Amino acid sequence: MQMDIGSKAARRFLEPFRGKACSPPPIWLMRQAGRYLPEYRETRTKAGGFLNLCYTPELAAEVTLQPIRRYGFDAAILFSDILVVPDALGQKVSFVEGEGPRLEPIRNVNDLRRLDPARTARTFAPVWETVARLRQDLPRETSLIGFCGAPWTVATYMVQGEGSSDQAEARLWAYRDREGFSRLIDILVETSISYLDNQVKAGADCLQIFDTWAGSLPDDEFDRWVVDPTRRIRESLRDLHPDVPVIGFPRGAGPAAVWYVAETGVDGIGCDTATPPYVMKEAFEDEDVVVQGNLDPLLLVAGGTQMDERVDEILSLMAGQRFIFNLGHGIVPQTPPENVARLVERVRKGT
Amino acid sequence: MQMDIGSKAARRFLEPFRGKACSPPPIWLMRQAGRYLPEYRETRTKAGGFLNLCYTPELAAEVTLQPIRRYGFDAAILFSDILVVPDALGQKVSFVEGEGPRLEPIRNVNDLRRLDPARTARTFAPVWETVARLRQDLPRETSLIGFCGAPWTVATYMVQGEGSSDQAEARLWAYRDREGFSRLIDILVETSISYLDNQVKAGADCLQIFDTWAGSLPDDEFDRWVVDPTRRIRESLRDLHPDVPVIGFPRGAGPAAVWYVAETGVDGIGCDTATPPYVMKEAFEDEDVVVQGNLDPLLLVAGGTQMDERVDEILSLMAGQRFIFNLGHGIVPQTPPENVARLVERVRKGT
Repeated sequence: MQMDIGSKAARRFLEPFRGKACSPPPIWLMRQAGRYLPEYRETRTKAGGFLNLCYTPELAAEVTLQPIRRYGFDAAILFSDILVVPDALGQKVSFVEGEGPRLEPIRNVNDLRRLDPARTARTFAPVWETVARLRQDLPRETSLIGFCGAPWTVATYMVQGEGSSDQAEARLWAYRDREGFSRLIDILVETSISYLDNQVKAGADCLQIFDTWAGSLPDDEFDRWVVDPTRRIRESLRDLHPDVPVIGFPRGAGPAAVWYVAETGVDGIGCDTATPPYVMKEAFEDEDVVVQGNLDPLLLVAGGTQMDERVDEILSLMAGQRFIFNLGHGIVPQTPPENVARLVERVRKGT
Repeated sequence: MQMDIGSKAARRFLEPFRGKACSPPPIWLMRQAGRYLPEYRETRTKAGGFLNLCYTPELAAEVTLQPIRRYGFDAAILFSDILVVPDALGQKVSFVEGEGPRLEPIRNVNDLRRLDPARTARTFAPVWETVARLRQDLPRETSLIGFCGAPWTVATYMVQGEGSSDQAEARLWAYRDREGFSRLIDILVETSISYLDNQVKAGADCLQIFDTWAGSLPDDEFDRWVVDPTRRIRESLRDLHPDVPVIGFPRGAGPAAVWYVAETGVDGIGCDTATPPYVMKEAFEDEDVVVQGNLDPLLLVAGGTQMDERVDEILSLMAGQRFIFNLGHGIVPQTPPENVARLVERVRKGT
């Protein structure tokens, strides 16, 4: 399936990637389809389980569209989860309500036999169908972002078996058996390339790689497990789809984010909440990269003039640069939907 | 109680604070008294509960001394917990085995009435007695580090009621009612000053302020809740005890750590695991500060030549600077004690 170049050209969201600073900047929000929206909660209840929602194209497309209908964001992001990749590889994944994901942990190179890259397409098929359906149903001017978890972050869940504050099990395996752990990473790199390639073929016009736990690694390990796998994914996708930009989101990378941009070749860099706006402005000036960020999701919960002031600060600092407005992390469930409306209005009005 | 200046002068640990780079550098490890040591587990069982251990001078002194006997670290650190401060203020604190701390959360300015700064000395008394006992029992050449949690980090637990990955409740309160939240911070600043003042009077010759969750805040909030309270504590202690150095450990602060050093006036800066060694070397060159860090605690679990190589890298980069060897975060329970012995030997041998 090929994109209609005419309609793609009309999408404001892509302009920063074509070298053009937009005023006001394009806006979308990480986890914009989510529990803070009553219509999302209703659809999720109908789906009966989180993974069911991800794998039912009609429902996944519906929740992807909900925030577009409400707020008219410049981009929709495929509703899915970074753990569909281990699920597709054959690792048992479940979501415990209120507790997060649970996986049967993979702790060493022998456990890798439980993974079967050959079977992933069967599991991914409904996700790709969701993308195709979305490209049909979205307004022509709205971009569609596909995504995957970065190999490092996905591996931390696969090895730990759940979320953790220090990703200890994955980090330990990586220290104890670098070669074995790199086989897991290789599987994730290859699977992610194929997963993203088919998202683009189905209609995604931008991709984001979420590396939520990039910040837990010392520099040499960061190079090995964050930078190198991301670079490999980026390069393969450039060969396959030279016009589709890739945004990296190495959360918590701090000053290493500049190195990450230079070495991976990502076209966009997502800045997290802790990145000071003046750093967001100055750090990437010498890099050929679009900057995306970084309002604190909790300030979006609080709302009011405090939020307005911070939004204005970010907008005025980033004015004239190739910039996309976003949060510094995902929307949290307790966000009042009216605060999102206020934010979008503020950004669109400009300063 | 006044320190014997003669013996204090003999302590290598303090030399970097007197302007002298040591070769090999002094070494101690965060959480060096802890569950990785069988003798600690035995004493903890005897104590019956974690807070009992903190409040029983004989036992708290015993576990503080255990790693000194085994490894001869240049400094001992008082065995206690950052949550003795809310406990002393009257907030109910308990430790659930394997799950971490639980507190009856304080969520708004009205809840502050439950805190009573006037009663803290009664709870702190056994901690100060532990310090006095330690100063008697420690070898004269071993420094004794007192500590407290930074107001921000302690507040995150007080408001959330438990550990959390995003400190959402404290951050939300701070956004929604800056004045009310700053009253909580003020209480913590005042209580911490008195708590630390008395630790020094009892015999501590250095202090560390642990700000584990400093990294979750955007820059303006970081200034308000991390930098400013730490500066106030530092300044008061300088008036009270001009010769006692204070080390700040703003974990996750990234590039803001340089700003933190300049603005708080701390004498030492603890660098976390994610700080690249070349940053540890270069970032603080223009600051009058001792650098401390930053081996990955998980590399200490893995051990072997990989650990040796990283230790050598840190030592050779930091050679000639005022430096204290430490980890980038606390020792984890699964650390083999023999790896700690290997580390100490490696550092003492030099490169």
